[in-house]
Amino acid sequence: MDPRTGLPVVGMVGAGQLARMTHQAAIALGQSLRVLAADPDDGAALVAADVHHGHHTDLAALRTFSKGCEVVTFDHEHVPTEHLRALVADGITVLPGPDALVHAQDKRVMRERLGELGLPIPRWAPVSSAAELAEFGFPAVLKATRGGYDGRGVWLVSSPEDAAEVLDSGTALIAEEKVPLVRELAAVVARSPYGQVAAWPIVETVQRDGICVEVLAPAPGLPAELAIEAQQLAIRIATELDVVGVLAVELFETADGLVINELAMRPHNSGHWTIEGSRTSQFEQHLRAVLDYPLGDTSMAAPVVVMANVLGGETGGPGIDERLHHLFAADPAVKVHLYGKAVRPGRKIGHVTALGEDLATVRARAVRAAAWLRDGRDPAEESA
Amino acid sequence: MDPRTGLPVVGMVGAGQLARMTHQAAIALGQSLRVLAADPDDGAALVAADVHHGHHTDLAALRTFSKGCEVVTFDHEHVPTEHLRALVADGITVLPGPDALVHAQDKRVMRERLGELGLPIPRWAPVSSAAELAEFGFPAVLKATRGGYDGRGVWLVSSPEDAAEVLDSGTALIAEEKVPLVRELAAVVARSPYGQVAAWPIVETVQRDGICVEVLAPAPGLPAELAIEAQQLAIRIATELDVVGVLAVELFETADGLVINELAMRPHNSGHWTIEGSRTSQFEQHLRAVLDYPLGDTSMAAPVVVMANVLGGETGGPGIDERLHHLFAADPAVKVHLYGKAVRPGRKIGHVTALGEDLATVRARAVRAAAWLRDGRDPAEESA
Repeated sequence: MDPRTGLPVVGMVGAGQLARMTHQAAIALGQSLRVLAADPDDGAALVAADVHHGHHTDLAALRTFSKGCEVVTFDHEHVPTEHLRALVADGITVLPGPDALVHAQDKRVMRERLGELGLPIPRWAPVSSAAELAEFGFPAVLKATRGGYDGRGVWLVSSPEDAAEVLDSGTALIAEEKVPLVRELAAVVARSPYGQVAAWPIVETVQRDGICVEVLAPAPGLPAELAIEAQQLAIRIATELDVVGVLAVELFETADGLVINELAMRPHNSGHWTIEGSRTSQFEQHLRAVLDYPLGDTSMAAPVVVMANVLGGETGGPGIDERLHHLFAADPAVKVHLYGKAVRPGRKIGHVTALGEDLATVRARAVRAAAWLRDGRDPAEESA
Repeated sequence: MDPRTGLPVVGMVGAGQLARMTHQAAIALGQSLRVLAADPDDGAALVAADVHHGHHTDLAALRTFSKGCEVVTFDHEHVPTEHLRALVADGITVLPGPDALVHAQDKRVMRERLGELGLPIPRWAPVSSAAELAEFGFPAVLKATRGGYDGRGVWLVSSPEDAAEVLDSGTALIAEEKVPLVRELAAVVARSPYGQVAAWPIVETVQRDGICVEVLAPAPGLPAELAIEAQQLAIRIATELDVVGVLAVELFETADGLVINELAMRPHNSGHWTIEGSRTSQFEQHLRAVLDYPLGDTSMAAPVVVMANVLGGETGGPGIDERLHHLFAADPAVKVHLYGKAVRPGRKIGHVTALGEDLATVRARAVRAAAWLRDGRDPAEESA
């Protein structure tokens, strides 16, 4: 407990935008999030009062950081499992715990476990040679078991030659069938140590080049039974894997039903819409969950909510401050979240959220706002 | 500009809960609020990355603090006018400017100016002796021209004897008639240097012992023409006084119409409901205004929003963390804002906000939540 406030100290390993937005939620709860920043310019390190500098692979740094925290949680999945076990052995409360988190860190472990549970997953196999891959068949999606994100660590291959370089690199891999998907969905839930689970509405996630560009809440036209099935899948995974905190389950919607793609055990891009779009944001809910507070209401604050990621565009031209000025003039109701990151082409530097009644209108507003912040101009005016 | 982000640095003098909540809004805009903290345990100093330690009456501290800020603004009204003029002379952008802010600092200056503008104010007079007060008449409300807040610096007197102590203290005073009010209202608006003004719906403020305990948005049963009149009053004051940032106009509703009570030129307790209750919070709007960004949409996010202040109760009994746990179990939808302050009886330590459709229900939820956090128990269960 912080002796100045009588309220808990939560430590988040990593200081990117998820920690940055979790700090905003922590402030409302009377707390001040402690973050472990690998880089002093990390988004959360720029805005938080309680910043430890150190790397998430450095056990000594993790130990110093964890001292005095009621609970240690994560902005990303990159802390080595053996370090987490060492912290637990020290008596630190680590949530999600290492036995849960490994399913978000290692795709092979995740596929094995979800398969054992009889949950819908793609056909898959561990592969370490061209022969094993040939046996699996083509086309195949090769995935690094660890360390991938935003399309990195994923390769679509249609022949042994396509796969030669990655197979030779020594990266631990699994192969998965290419799922004939209708679209991608995400089921975001939170679970507390007490076992309470709360689910937000199922969303559609729109991807481009392996990066999520838009999230539509609720997923347009999703039949109620499929939405419930998706929520129940996520709740079952959270419960079976003993996840504590936010769990995001990325799903493929196919002609034959739902297929589980990936898991994340932390606030997730597919839940950013909840900041304004739900009565409880995923960031507040993650804190409530890891602190074993009762969870918050996940009702939507408007019938339709669309989040669009702001990617870094070409540098040059108007600066981000001028772009923001123009955006606010064009749409006084859109909500902006900038992460304090230097602009690099394709890098997620923020997101925007629009709320309303009509999907086409709300989506157009969000997409236009994100384009303004990326390029400093309105795509509609471009084509006019 | 912050060279790391390309976004402006806003400095806020004072580091109380208003700065704390403004920092949350600043984070979304890609910024990190710089605060000048008189005490290292001030609410914003506990959560912000860019904290200067120093007193708001120390010009040297103000100068160091202001260096590199795009704009300097305020968490309170206590910076001496001559210091503000010195900063302006240094080339610092100070908003609201000293010529505007003085109307929120000095009640005599405010009354004179509003009177000149022909705006509805109580009958009043400067008084410095028992004779002058007797000439004004009884009952009278004596107010210190400077430094009062939350009922401090205000005395209701019905005889010269009642007033003897305060008259003898040498405090500069005005006397005002005791306005026969129906209830209190507040009109909160924001204005940018460009001259754009945005108004939130008029709210009712419920006072107890001179402290605001509840805010009801919109003011229940307020006739539309009176609501528009109140908004127009606030817009006129903002424009005539060249206010930049948020302006809160505290109003008395009387049988004969509206009477202006007090002005505040900063985010104000009567606008805390906007965090969840409006598309744009007063904290975001204050930043947008002082940075001359176009202002945000002030639509309500729900038909009825009620904010209740959490006052410190008797110490002892369950701690604030345990109280919060119970509150969340009782009402998963209420939103909590704790300011990181040590509990002292009667001190504002946070607020809660409830949203919904029906005033009686929403109000009961907010009041119950505030009572839980104050006393660690539900007042309904007490009386049952």
